[in-house]
Amino acid sequence: MADKKLVESITSMGEDFAQWYTDVVKKAELIDYTSVKGCMVLKPAGYAIWENIQSTLDAMFKETGVQNVYLPMFIPESLLQKEKDHVEGFAPEVAWVTHGGLEPLQERMCVRPTSETLFCDFYKNDIQSYRDLPKVYNQWCSVVRWEKETRPFLRSREFLWQEGHTAHATAQQAEERTIQMLNVYAKFCEEVLAMPVIKGRKTDKEKFAGAEATYTIEALMHDGKALQSGTSHNFGDGFAKAFGIQYTDKDNTLKYVHQTSWGMTTRLIGAIIMVHGDDSGLVLPPRIAPTQVIVIPIQQKKEGVLDKANELKDELSKKYRVKIDDSDKTPGWKFSEAEMRGIPVRVEIGPKDIEAGKCVICRRDTREKIEVALDELDAKIGEVLDLMQKEMLERARAHREEHTYVATNFEEFEKIFTEKAGFVKAMWCGEEECENTIKEKLSVTSRCMPFEQEELADKCVCCGKPAKKMVYWGKAY
Amino acid sequence: MADKKLVESITSMGEDFAQWYTDVVKKAELIDYTSVKGCMVLKPAGYAIWENIQSTLDAMFKETGVQNVYLPMFIPESLLQKEKDHVEGFAPEVAWVTHGGLEPLQERMCVRPTSETLFCDFYKNDIQSYRDLPKVYNQWCSVVRWEKETRPFLRSREFLWQEGHTAHATAQQAEERTIQMLNVYAKFCEEVLAMPVIKGRKTDKEKFAGAEATYTIEALMHDGKALQSGTSHNFGDGFAKAFGIQYTDKDNTLKYVHQTSWGMTTRLIGAIIMVHGDDSGLVLPPRIAPTQVIVIPIQQKKEGVLDKANELKDELSKKYRVKIDDSDKTPGWKFSEAEMRGIPVRVEIGPKDIEAGKCVICRRDTREKIEVALDELDAKIGEVLDLMQKEMLERARAHREEHTYVATNFEEFEKIFTEKAGFVKAMWCGEEECENTIKEKLSVTSRCMPFEQEELADKCVCCGKPAKKMVYWGKAY
Repeated sequence: MADKKLVESITSMGEDFAQWYTDVVKKAELIDYTSVKGCMVLKPAGYAIWENIQSTLDAMFKETGVQNVYLPMFIPESLLQKEKDHVEGFAPEVAWVTHGGLEPLQERMCVRPTSETLFCDFYKNDIQSYRDLPKVYNQWCSVVRWEKETRPFLRSREFLWQEGHTAHATAQQAEERTIQMLNVYAKFCEEVLAMPVIKGRKTDKEKFAGAEATYTIEALMHDGKALQSGTSHNFGDGFAKAFGIQYTDKDNTLKYVHQTSWGMTTRLIGAIIMVHGDDSGLVLPPRIAPTQVIVIPIQQKKEGVLDKANELKDELSKKYRVKIDDSDKTPGWKFSEAEMRGIPVRVEIGPKDIEAGKCVICRRDTREKIEVALDELDAKIGEVLDLMQKEMLERARAHREEHTYVATNFEEFEKIFTEKAGFVKAMWCGEEECENTIKEKLSVTSRCMPFEQEELADKCVCCGKPAKKMVYWGKAY
Repeated sequence: MADKKLVESITSMGEDFAQWYTDVVKKAELIDYTSVKGCMVLKPAGYAIWENIQSTLDAMFKETGVQNVYLPMFIPESLLQKEKDHVEGFAPEVAWVTHGGLEPLQERMCVRPTSETLFCDFYKNDIQSYRDLPKVYNQWCSVVRWEKETRPFLRSREFLWQEGHTAHATAQQAEERTIQMLNVYAKFCEEVLAMPVIKGRKTDKEKFAGAEATYTIEALMHDGKALQSGTSHNFGDGFAKAFGIQYTDKDNTLKYVHQTSWGMTTRLIGAIIMVHGDDSGLVLPPRIAPTQVIVIPIQQKKEGVLDKANELKDELSKKYRVKIDDSDKTPGWKFSEAEMRGIPVRVEIGPKDIEAGKCVICRRDTREKIEVALDELDAKIGEVLDLMQKEMLERARAHREEHTYVATNFEEFEKIFTEKAGFVKAMWCGEEECENTIKEKLSVTSRCMPFEQEELADKCVCCGKPAKKMVYWGKAY
């Protein structure tokens, strides 16, 4: 049995979801707070998840032809101001550098909140001819947005992310790349993070500052709130015109490039916590877990136990990411810690097990315990990890389906959001006025116009005028 | 033969080494300049080298028990000021953030020039007991130092690096870790970058701001100038006392921790260029080269040539990092480009080769051409890459030996630095005054007191007083 003390130190989800979340990020040792308000330390357990996200996603990017680069972290004010919508969106929330060493700067610079303007400034010189296209660049870095309210992973003043920035010869190629990267994001979330997502397009009100179209993947958290988990933007030639990015085409005429950008952030770690976690702490999908298997020796002072446990660890390490806990804590405490940290499988091995040539394995998500013969352990763990990955996705999908509702008129719409939490599918006329009304009255926003449209009704759920699109609505992080 | 045009576009090393360097970083497409003075774009070819440095070094770190973390990029001014020597060293060259969004900050913050103070602030809470020690953390990030004069890779206002920060129970453990990481750096430089280094200790004048001891690896560039290539610092308990980082030891008493830090930067890419490059451009050591082999089809429009070239590429890709250049440029131009980019081996394959069941491979460093039977190509390339890696190190070592001189009195010392460029080994009394005199008269600095000491003379090369240490002196980047 797991020791109660550690588990009792976190609030239960049902009691206070927000407090549960805060407790888990601290007790699972993912982050620490700092003297810099709104900025956090990513501790080893938290950063290791990001390293796995990074390496998996980076390999998926490179398969589609992405090349990594690194651009400066500073943006001169004049550069930020070149694209009107973009600067309006970001200027209120950037950090300004005004002094270098002991002297004031001639022109102040912001710390990048995102790097469209820098990439444009770079592409302006780097792109001359159709032969230079497409440019499919990405960078892994940190960005800064001076938020008033912050929460670990979900909203912090500095966060880690990747930002892809591409330039193409035609509008069609830009649109294709925008959708291609959204699909990469969705595939990554579903197959690696075991987190189902709704793919769709943002309304004009919710799109990125400077974009022609923003596409998004939206996930549902355990408390019924939505989390925007990745976005992909098609800029058309708006930035190209503002920055003068032209190429000589095959027909010898000058044309503007068409651009995209797309990003995912450490916010994904928040998503993993809120989609899979439980009252004992974190539950990590096997494919992203820094440690997949933890070996816990029972009565480890008895002769042969530690040797056997280490032998299992070495053997399993050939295929899986394995650790052993041979500290002097009690087994119960070790179980609790392993559960808090979300390690998918624990292996218990004691003197009696060794005698019988077996051990016990325990799945983190279901807590199912299975006796396994030692010579079948390797294969069995592979099976259990695969099954766990699959069932975690299925459970998350079932949870989302159970918390996705349909409203065909405003009364229904209001009733659902008063009584329940989740996604609500409803028809919309396409007017921003209705989005504003809905936000004001129900405190919910349009999450996306999903690619899979349904005709739930012919009238807008808000104003009753003819409907144009089905929209997912929800309260969002 | 390589096409002359591209090669002629760079200045020769002998004519103007500084211009040659600048030409290579641009023509090999490693970097681009930006609108942000002193900051550069790392283009795909440059960033890919950094990615390889990062992944190789990171694996070496992890073998020694290092864990990665991420700390904020901002340091509040009051935090930077806690350690007196440290703030004096860095305050004159930091960038200051004074505004967040539209409002002035209550306390200004600098963008990290290095993160000792942040790690101390973090460790202060994270370390309570001897059980929490050692902490062996590292982060990969960018830092900012507001330099007046900048050069790509060697000195820029923002650069990428890793910074390790550790905390230990005893002074001895801290010293051991400091030396251990210096050894990792030296091994990495020699075995992976094919760059021999001198390991030693910095004099007090040259040590890191706030350190008790700074250890360094020093390499000699092709022009005879020295490059500090990595440093490892032992802080003793100086920072711990300034920040109050104490732990309860086994004997139940409160003790201060002992700390270290160590870093390597994108400057290593500058070192690779200046140690191995030649008048045709970059020469990359096989182990760090993003592309190790480039297949160049000859008369590629003839039937079967492209197919065969692609077949070779696919086959070789199982073991090596391989690209094919099937663009419509001439073979000569492709050769020049591959040379400029420093790709270790090129494979030429044309109709006659295919008929004869062979191809030609050419080594980048020696330009040696070898005919190889196609069924032996795979093994032969492995051999050539290994040999090239080995010989590049040997050549660099021979170059360093040829440019390392001995001076036993000031006249010799002055004569060498007037007529030649390189390292000079000479005895030193241990007084900073002599270092100052030498710097003033000869414009050279003490690079390090090497671990391998020799007794060249019994008097200081400068003042003639009894000598205490042998020192490597040189002009440095």
